Amino acid sequence: MKLICTQNNFRKAVFTTERITGKQNTLPILKNIMLETENGQLKFSSTNLEIGVFMKIGAKIEKEGKITVPARLLGDFINNLPKEEKVLLEDKNKILNITSGNYSAKIKGLGAEDFPIIPKLEGNYLISLPAHKFKEAISRILFCVSVNENRPEFSGVNTYFLENKITMAATDSFRLAEINLELKNDSIGENYKNFIGEKKSIIIPFNTLSEITRVIDDETKKINIAIEENQIFFEIDGVQIVSRLINGKFPEYKQIIPKKFNTRAVLAKEDFLRAVKLSNVFADSKSGEISLNIDSKKKDLFIQAQSQELGENKTRLKADIIGPSQEVFLNPRYVIDGVNAIFSSNVAISVNNESSPVGLKAIDNKTGKVLAGYVYIIMPIKK
Amino acid sequence: MKLICTQNNFRKAVFTTERITGKQNTLPILKNIMLETENGQLKFSSTNLEIGVFMKIGAKIEKEGKITVPARLLGDFINNLPKEEKVLLEDKNKILNITSGNYSAKIKGLGAEDFPIIPKLEGNYLISLPAHKFKEAISRILFCVSVNENRPEFSGVNTYFLENKITMAATDSFRLAEINLELKNDSIGENYKNFIGEKKSIIIPFNTLSEITRVIDDETKKINIAIEENQIFFEIDGVQIVSRLINGKFPEYKQIIPKKFNTRAVLAKEDFLRAVKLSNVFADSKSGEISLNIDSKKKDLFIQAQSQELGENKTRLKADIIGPSQEVFLNPRYVIDGVNAIFSSNVAISVNNESSPVGLKAIDNKTGKVLAGYVYIIMPIKK
Repeated sequence: MKLICTQNNFRKAVFTTERITGKQNTLPILKNIMLETENGQLKFSSTNLEIGVFMKIGAKIEKEGKITVPARLLGDFINNLPKEEKVLLEDKNKILNITSGNYSAKIKGLGAEDFPIIPKLEGNYLISLPAHKFKEAISRILFCVSVNENRPEFSGVNTYFLENKITMAATDSFRLAEINLELKNDSIGENYKNFIGEKKSIIIPFNTLSEITRVIDDETKKINIAIEENQIFFEIDGVQIVSRLINGKFPEYKQIIPKKFNTRAVLAKEDFLRAVKLSNVFADSKSGEISLNIDSKKKDLFIQAQSQELGENKTRLKADIIGPSQEVFLNPRYVIDGVNAIFSSNVAISVNNESSPVGLKAIDNKTGKVLAGYVYIIMPIKK
Repeated sequence: MKLICTQNNFRKAVFTTERITGKQNTLPILKNIMLETENGQLKFSSTNLEIGVFMKIGAKIEKEGKITVPARLLGDFINNLPKEEKVLLEDKNKILNITSGNYSAKIKGLGAEDFPIIPKLEGNYLISLPAHKFKEAISRILFCVSVNENRPEFSGVNTYFLENKITMAATDSFRLAEINLELKNDSIGENYKNFIGEKKSIIIPFNTLSEITRVIDDETKKINIAIEENQIFFEIDGVQIVSRLINGKFPEYKQIIPKKFNTRAVLAKEDFLRAVKLSNVFADSKSGEISLNIDSKKKDLFIQAQSQELGENKTRLKADIIGPSQEVFLNPRYVIDGVNAIFSSNVAISVNNESSPVGLKAIDNKTGKVLAGYVYIIMPIKK
């Protein structure tokens, strides 16, 4: 291999592929990035066996070839180079020579022949979504994914592909979030109808979606998605990411979401968030719970926490309340997570009784009505 | 105790005192802040037995009293309160009631009678220095302090008090930094002459100086210093900090600093820093060293590192060189630390031979001459 490329492109490709490498020492080659000339371009690939990534950049190629080099070393080196110079690459006896201006390095590599094969998309992409809408949707549900390894089906986001929308949901069995993403006609590929005919629901691993949200930056326009043989493929502005899917059956959660609520309290999101954070200071010890007390006579919401060891606290906030008075006990962290996933200036707290799921909902700033398309519910702590 | 104060003052006092509390569980009261009414003000104090701090704020006192409460809980609570409200404090049965607007808490405290006594300054301050000059000087030497507990005299900054300057030095025996701070006439207290007559040199603990630099903020004007009975006292805009001094004799380091150097290379600081950081990427493994090669014929400086495992790198930089060619091996981290403590745009690398200390010096941007007042030397690695 012998070639010249811009340092800017090189840097971007290293940073994109560096993240998706193996961290364990059992298979050292997974810590490497593969560099490979292909059709007049330089292709970068890396994998941790769960996720794989490809990215190509323009290059002036003098001699074809391929080599794998340690990702972190390459990244640290590139990160310290002065910007806006070309980079010259040449390999010799499994050593990669890099030169940029007065700066040069010889990096010891490993043979490309031992690098694992990363699955490639055979067909076409099924759907195409606005990248920022997708990223925002992920951010509103991903925090609910469980890290419990005994229940692999909880360790990812369940995704239903429907005719004109996709529905994504995540739960750790204590709380659940669900979001809908509309599909416009021009974002649906030719094969999509056949696909939803045969297989409609998949579970995408947490890490995969977490990486996807990192790859989407301010300039990203769209994300393409395809599914083939238990693998999901994403394409984000020239970066291709492939990931295994999680085997297992996501719980039938639809019937857990209450169809209607008896009591609803609407108040300013920031005030509510602050009160819950204050209570969280006191709930942080053994009890780990706060109480929400909706007083429908006084039109007050009380947020309280008590700790044998630390003391107690109480906040009274005015709220628009419909329905009877209620008291529920909740994990304050779940409440904070949910409020942070609501982007409107007001929030609705919806309660049926002390043991039924509590809903947090966004309120349309203009109409004052509940915004559809996003559900977040928390199981109360039974006393 | 019953009083009202502004939340802003309360917050500032909690944050200042919260940092200096005990972290271990052996003496739980050290995790508390003492609140105490005194002469129409509310006094906050905390200590970790090595350092103590006092701060007073204005308050409308209805009833005198004192109580100690957990610093972290108080800080977390205050941190989440909405700003610009008054705070009401009242204690009852060792519980502190705090109310601010609609937000309230009861915090379980411990009796003030068990709180350790923090030494108080009996006399006057000896000297007064511009706070930012002091903070900058500390930042240029503090990183050399050794964390080696076997040599307590290395775990602080040696400070010589001289007639018209103080000289501060720190070393971990591998590198050494020394800085001079001039004393102007109006910054010297009445007793200073007597003081330097009897005791001229002290060792101030690393943690103490580290806290001092945190307390000095953009608005701080000056810092007052006094020494009494193995304690050092600082006063920074109403915050009083007292610390024990380190017993022990700081090494006689003056004779280690070369009086003159045979070879000097001057070059742009940023270029040199970048080259050393690049070499550090490769030196990071077993060898842990880089070589500086001053070629006085070609007027080139070569920065190189080699690693059996990773590979090697090399940078060539043009430099103004006086004296014969040299090659020295250095720990790249020590070089990076030293360059970061130099604020001029050019840096001078001064070398006598492969085994004598190497100096890094600031260069006056206008005259091109070496700036006096700051010394940083590194012991080379012998081959």
